[in-house]
Amino acid sequence: MDRLQPEFKDEIRRIVGDENLKDEEAIATIDHGVAPENLGAGAVVFPRTTDEVAAVVKCCLANGISLVTHGGRTGLVGGAMSRPGELVLSTVRLNRILDISPIERVAVVEAGVTLQALQVAAAEHRLETGIDLPSRGSATIGGMASTNAGGIAAFRFGVMRHRILGLEAVLADGSIYSDLTRVVKNAAGYDLKHLFVGAEGTLGIITRIAVKLEPQPFATATVLFGLPSVDAALETVRRGLDAEYGQLRAAEAIWNTYFRLTSGHHRWSVSDYNAEHPVNLLVSLSGAEEGALQSELGRIYEDVIEDHPDASAVIASSGAQEMDLWRLREDTDLIYRKHPSAPSYDVSVPLSQVGSYLNRCLADLRGLDATFDPYVFGHLADGNLHIVLNAAGSDIAGEKAKAIEKVLYRDIVTIGGSFSAEHGIGTKRVGSLSATSNPVKLALMHRVKDTLDASAILNPGKVLPRQPTLRRRVHATR
Amino acid sequence: MDRLQPEFKDEIRRIVGDENLKDEEAIATIDHGVAPENLGAGAVVFPRTTDEVAAVVKCCLANGISLVTHGGRTGLVGGAMSRPGELVLSTVRLNRILDISPIERVAVVEAGVTLQALQVAAAEHRLETGIDLPSRGSATIGGMASTNAGGIAAFRFGVMRHRILGLEAVLADGSIYSDLTRVVKNAAGYDLKHLFVGAEGTLGIITRIAVKLEPQPFATATVLFGLPSVDAALETVRRGLDAEYGQLRAAEAIWNTYFRLTSGHHRWSVSDYNAEHPVNLLVSLSGAEEGALQSELGRIYEDVIEDHPDASAVIASSGAQEMDLWRLREDTDLIYRKHPSAPSYDVSVPLSQVGSYLNRCLADLRGLDATFDPYVFGHLADGNLHIVLNAAGSDIAGEKAKAIEKVLYRDIVTIGGSFSAEHGIGTKRVGSLSATSNPVKLALMHRVKDTLDASAILNPGKVLPRQPTLRRRVHATR
Repeated sequence: MDRLQPEFKDEIRRIVGDENLKDEEAIATIDHGVAPENLGAGAVVFPRTTDEVAAVVKCCLANGISLVTHGGRTGLVGGAMSRPGELVLSTVRLNRILDISPIERVAVVEAGVTLQALQVAAAEHRLETGIDLPSRGSATIGGMASTNAGGIAAFRFGVMRHRILGLEAVLADGSIYSDLTRVVKNAAGYDLKHLFVGAEGTLGIITRIAVKLEPQPFATATVLFGLPSVDAALETVRRGLDAEYGQLRAAEAIWNTYFRLTSGHHRWSVSDYNAEHPVNLLVSLSGAEEGALQSELGRIYEDVIEDHPDASAVIASSGAQEMDLWRLREDTDLIYRKHPSAPSYDVSVPLSQVGSYLNRCLADLRGLDATFDPYVFGHLADGNLHIVLNAAGSDIAGEKAKAIEKVLYRDIVTIGGSFSAEHGIGTKRVGSLSATSNPVKLALMHRVKDTLDASAILNPGKVLPRQPTLRRRVHATR
Repeated sequence: MDRLQPEFKDEIRRIVGDENLKDEEAIATIDHGVAPENLGAGAVVFPRTTDEVAAVVKCCLANGISLVTHGGRTGLVGGAMSRPGELVLSTVRLNRILDISPIERVAVVEAGVTLQALQVAAAEHRLETGIDLPSRGSATIGGMASTNAGGIAAFRFGVMRHRILGLEAVLADGSIYSDLTRVVKNAAGYDLKHLFVGAEGTLGIITRIAVKLEPQPFATATVLFGLPSVDAALETVRRGLDAEYGQLRAAEAIWNTYFRLTSGHHRWSVSDYNAEHPVNLLVSLSGAEEGALQSELGRIYEDVIEDHPDASAVIASSGAQEMDLWRLREDTDLIYRKHPSAPSYDVSVPLSQVGSYLNRCLADLRGLDATFDPYVFGHLADGNLHIVLNAAGSDIAGEKAKAIEKVLYRDIVTIGGSFSAEHGIGTKRVGSLSATSNPVKLALMHRVKDTLDASAILNPGKVLPRQPTLRRRVHATR
């Protein structure tokens, strides 16, 4: 097991100051986030400026040390895992909100600013971020850019990639790529910022981001529908998208198995709402005036009932009721308490294929194991389904795990979907990416990685497999 | 002057069939589009399938022949220009609309489908493309992807890059990059399609595209405001963005010099509308119901008048009146009839900077030449300004042309804008790109070009300067 040499750590300390490199005992004061392996490197550097990041990268390159960049450590696929001999670079002290312009509705922030910090600052101008995630308190804008985060509003406001106007990043040679434009129209050459967005720190270290903001709505209104089928749910999403008053803000589907779990646990019940519907759909609208939004939901409800007389519906009439409805969707912890480390999947499916895809997968999963009855929920307006097995992670390994992935990913590319919608690749899905990707695309990914990070010092083994030959080349050419 | 060899042309004919290579006299039957230099190569191949494109590319690579890909030949910056010894590849016969899904609101098309053809097909499902351009009859979806086209609705629906979900492209080695996802959420590895979008055919040849569609509005309503200042126009744009009913569909600004030209020529006048306002602003809303949209425009009008009692306004009360108002913005031909080949510029400016940027530029331009009084108009909601000099192109060259660019581009990067908003780089702006780009970004562009097209056979001399050393390498290694 190789460890960082004291001389190297001294060099890093000279760049950032003694207090901004933590190792040995000091590591214990740092929250490892989702997995203890995130801090496997045993040393974390906390640069405070882009220039310090650049100097750290140059020092690592000169010494053949790999860098694993950390945001909020909230990723679910092992993108932040690190090993002894590597150095973790935390963006936590790159936490300045540099500018918020209410006129162009753009914020320029350093990478370590949390989503919540930006939300609070934007709210002072009656603006919001357009993307929201449950982990807002720890997730950073840099991490969200690096993973191309999604969330519940992607159907309307796009994913992180669509919201980033400009970007600054430190490249693997320590040079600083600076393209902090704050305009949506920019045809000035190759738009290479898209290489860094979603690359999970493997092509460069994002240090600053210019992101679009959206006006905060004055009012919202929420309804929960119980519906007989996926098709009925999709029709209802469409009615939300076509609302005459207000705009669709969320359309979250909760399939029956998961609905029974959350509604049962929270003892949620409403008279006339049948808890046994195959699909439940939470629809929120936003707009200028709450009464008008409630009326619009009423209109949608009438249309739904006309087509599906057996549908149920409950319109939230207070903020507390709205939160109760959202808890039925968001309390995913209940799954993991029942099934520790339950294997979870995160697919994007074109809307026209959601019904047939799920039918086939659920049948095939039962074919593998008659006890499989997965929890299914997700962002229906953009076809992003989360599928969590009703089984402990420790029970699913090896060939069985492979067979499950085969069921879920078999035709996902053919139907125009994605096997990884919003969680990324990290370390956990490197094999699945190689298995599902177009070979020409995969080969080009490798060539791009080699072009941008020939010494393979940036987050090795994430997105693409570790490349031992490249590693050796670094050490040989030092 | 080197020309294509007969043996090479025979090879190409064997791939596509005799009738799908046009050269010598047959060239005269092809419309050269914006500039005769587009057909400078003297030979055009018309592949009908992606496989034929791939075979043509392989044949060109083997023979060291450069390829210039053509869509509708509507580009304004020389991206389609070709020279003897090169081969033009036209996408005109890749013109199939492969799929339109009204459920997911996505179209999959071949690159040569015109914008208008897609608009007509989408309209059958009450859908629209989200991007519209005056050259819709000839501009192709492939060309719009390659140039990252913008238009009047980018503030709302994004530019072409934001609307492309999936893409297929032939790489410089003839391999086929296939990533035709039809979902918005896709975190499955590096999203390399963004290399091809906006690369003007220099990194690959786009053959198929999956694009998002939007619901057609049921109704629109339009108002023209005459306003005392850029700030007043920006406030009015904001009122449109924040409309309580309906959504902002367009916010086109027309500065006084251009307004006098178009309104004078078309003898447009309306009582109570003062034609001498510094800025005129065309605002369109879309929504479910025309009467409600007109009322909303009325509300906005009252707010504007309250803040600016000297403002003028006219609300179109018929489709014909709406068209009359749009003509005041869109009849740019009037400029070029008066000033042949008048130099035109296309910048993006963050909204908070539009006023000060224009004031400074107009003063500095007058400093260069006291007769300069440019025509200024543009897409104000996204800060995209078109500035056309009141001078013939033949009068502006050499040092004077450079001095003008210096005025317009001097601080455009510093303020967070872009010197090329939606027209791209082509051949005309290669020097300006090098002059204004971040050097690290520019160097990375060169490395990416070298990685994807080591033999420099794809649209050489566009976006980046021609690289003679690379060309020689091809010939040497054949």
